[in-house]
Amino acid sequence: MIRINENYRKLKASYLFSEISKRVDEFQAGNPDKQIIRLGIGDVTLPLPEVCLKAFHEAVDEMADEKTFKGYGPNQGYAFLREKIAEWDFRKRGADINADEIFVSDGAKCDSANLQEIFATKKLRIAVPDPVYPVYVDTNVMAGRTGPNVDGRYEGLIYLECTGDNKFIPSTPRKRADLIYLCFPNNPTGATITKRQLKKWVDYAIRHKSLIIFDAAYEAFIRNPKLPHSIYEIPGAREVAIEVRSFSKTAGFTGTRCAYTVVPTTCRAYDSEKNEVNLHSLWGRRQNTKFNGVSYPVQKAASAIYSELGQKQVKTMNDYYLRNATLILKEMTGLGFQCTGGTNAPYIWVNGNTDSWEFFNLLLKKAGVVVTPGAGFGKCGEGYIRISAFNNYESVQLAMKKIVDALRMD
Amino acid sequence: MIRINENYRKLKASYLFSEISKRVDEFQAGNPDKQIIRLGIGDVTLPLPEVCLKAFHEAVDEMADEKTFKGYGPNQGYAFLREKIAEWDFRKRGADINADEIFVSDGAKCDSANLQEIFATKKLRIAVPDPVYPVYVDTNVMAGRTGPNVDGRYEGLIYLECTGDNKFIPSTPRKRADLIYLCFPNNPTGATITKRQLKKWVDYAIRHKSLIIFDAAYEAFIRNPKLPHSIYEIPGAREVAIEVRSFSKTAGFTGTRCAYTVVPTTCRAYDSEKNEVNLHSLWGRRQNTKFNGVSYPVQKAASAIYSELGQKQVKTMNDYYLRNATLILKEMTGLGFQCTGGTNAPYIWVNGNTDSWEFFNLLLKKAGVVVTPGAGFGKCGEGYIRISAFNNYESVQLAMKKIVDALRMD
Repeated sequence: MIRINENYRKLKASYLFSEISKRVDEFQAGNPDKQIIRLGIGDVTLPLPEVCLKAFHEAVDEMADEKTFKGYGPNQGYAFLREKIAEWDFRKRGADINADEIFVSDGAKCDSANLQEIFATKKLRIAVPDPVYPVYVDTNVMAGRTGPNVDGRYEGLIYLECTGDNKFIPSTPRKRADLIYLCFPNNPTGATITKRQLKKWVDYAIRHKSLIIFDAAYEAFIRNPKLPHSIYEIPGAREVAIEVRSFSKTAGFTGTRCAYTVVPTTCRAYDSEKNEVNLHSLWGRRQNTKFNGVSYPVQKAASAIYSELGQKQVKTMNDYYLRNATLILKEMTGLGFQCTGGTNAPYIWVNGNTDSWEFFNLLLKKAGVVVTPGAGFGKCGEGYIRISAFNNYESVQLAMKKIVDALRMD
Repeated sequence: MIRINENYRKLKASYLFSEISKRVDEFQAGNPDKQIIRLGIGDVTLPLPEVCLKAFHEAVDEMADEKTFKGYGPNQGYAFLREKIAEWDFRKRGADINADEIFVSDGAKCDSANLQEIFATKKLRIAVPDPVYPVYVDTNVMAGRTGPNVDGRYEGLIYLECTGDNKFIPSTPRKRADLIYLCFPNNPTGATITKRQLKKWVDYAIRHKSLIIFDAAYEAFIRNPKLPHSIYEIPGAREVAIEVRSFSKTAGFTGTRCAYTVVPTTCRAYDSEKNEVNLHSLWGRRQNTKFNGVSYPVQKAASAIYSELGQKQVKTMNDYYLRNATLILKEMTGLGFQCTGGTNAPYIWVNGNTDSWEFFNLLLKKAGVVVTPGAGFGKCGEGYIRISAFNNYESVQLAMKKIVDALRMD
């Protein structure tokens, strides 16, 4: 008899963004004339940078000629892309990362979902932020590393509470955590971490022989020169951290699909006899067995951002979204709400001081604006909403005007 | 302490194609003037079909304009592609498959690797062919479903022996198998299965409440109108089979990356209390949590093969490789070797009646031709080599001339 993986049964049935869609669709059906502006899901709206488009077309042309045609590429990604990433994203910032430590993939979601596979399923103590990007949690539930969900939390996980009290930067836990997920600039709170704060985590991981999965998918929005873009700017991180990056937000690749993960050759874990094991070769084996590389034209398009012109175009694109963020932050603060994020991050985390879904409903019904209820990201998200800066400026202006009108009327 | 998944330790260290590369590189280094022709790895060489190139460019152009730009697409794949697949690959052949039963992905390797995740890890009896595409085996080893590798076989797996005696079509096992991997046209043997033979497997799966993962990555090479292209041409298969397909060989997409998996809405498995569970929603949940869809321009390029013109171009492309296969089959048979495959399949499985790696070395050193040693695919591959028809015709002609000269000299 073919039996299922019953860990899936532990997952909470409704996925956050499906529930949002459902509510929006119902409202639109009842109010067909009402304009709806979406500041919910974090999806980019601007076209691909010109450098990427040019490289994309050229690579498609290469696929038209037997002499330049590309079949299977290296599973780890082409060297032309990995070398540029190492140079521009790391060494230019003083982070010592080499091309052979980079694994190109089709998404930061996939990588942050798959990385847990190379670790033990039993007796591993896993720490996740709360509020959290649900993928970190759900993939560990599916792999059987948790108990059931009781009252909104899975038994066996360590929840790192991110609240107004700690300015959404979690403290290292008193309990020992073996595998730690961190994300900065944070989704959903938009909080950023300083080098000093991040160093505490690296030191913790060294002390406890833990491993950090550092999700830096939103690093392109950092403008404060003092903030770290990579965990490898912190001494000692090469031994204790894996970093996940993406072209999705950096270069508008949510529909084009390219990302990468850094596993330094010095990064270690342990076997049951406490011997050190090299994680670079373990992840390499995982990828070689289960993945066949990213589309060649997509890798060419991604690599085009690594030039003076490419960097300029990417910065212009992200500055556009940051202008949206600034406007949202200003208006929500003006309405008297306590807000986090919105600078160095494309998300604004708003303390509504009320039930998240009620606030969601209010903004949908009175202003026609879709946001994301904070409760969908975890217990500590209750009372908050996340507003995304990914939309065009005119729509954001209009959305903020409608929110201001609706809440002033109240 | 962060501990590794120790199941990885059970994996045999050397990966087949790495070992081949190593030997070829060593030989080339010692014989820099010797021309080497590669008929080893199954990688396409012809450019993408013109219809695909045109659609690919057009889709990249859409990414240049805010009005037509595509961000996150549906994780399951765009409807425009899934509807065409259902119509052209299934309903036109009398197989009752709908668009919502198709999950577009970036590779048949990924899908055949990931599907095991939705099944139990304990007490599941898994049957794999021998010789076998290593991904089926290695991913189950990594997930902890086997014991150690003893004498070339993993304890706990059921090996379905494919030999000259059964013409490389395995019989249903006497022992109960819960999860069964089948691949036709077969990699590596090139053997094809008839409807009658496949019906035995479907009936077995119905009788034993088993599930079949049917890998049809090479279906585009079938020319005999009586052979099934899909397992869904067999009555009852919708309840007991998942099918994996790819554009890699069909349309030359090994470097472009697009594939799909079919999970019928009627396909079932069981929980530990023997209740039926719907696999379509289970796989959907897996993909929604761990995958973010395939690049939009790539999906557009793939969908272009589904037109009269597209089908014609794809057929011309695959006929080209089949002409190579015919030549290889003719020459190897002419040398007195017993061969399988080479018709309705791009691989020729040659009984060398000698150690696989010795035969590999002989062909490399005497003829300068790279093939794949059958032993790399499992115990039953010992004594065989796989010759791939993926190369240009002139190279295949030259390779066969060199092999004929080398073996006649012997």
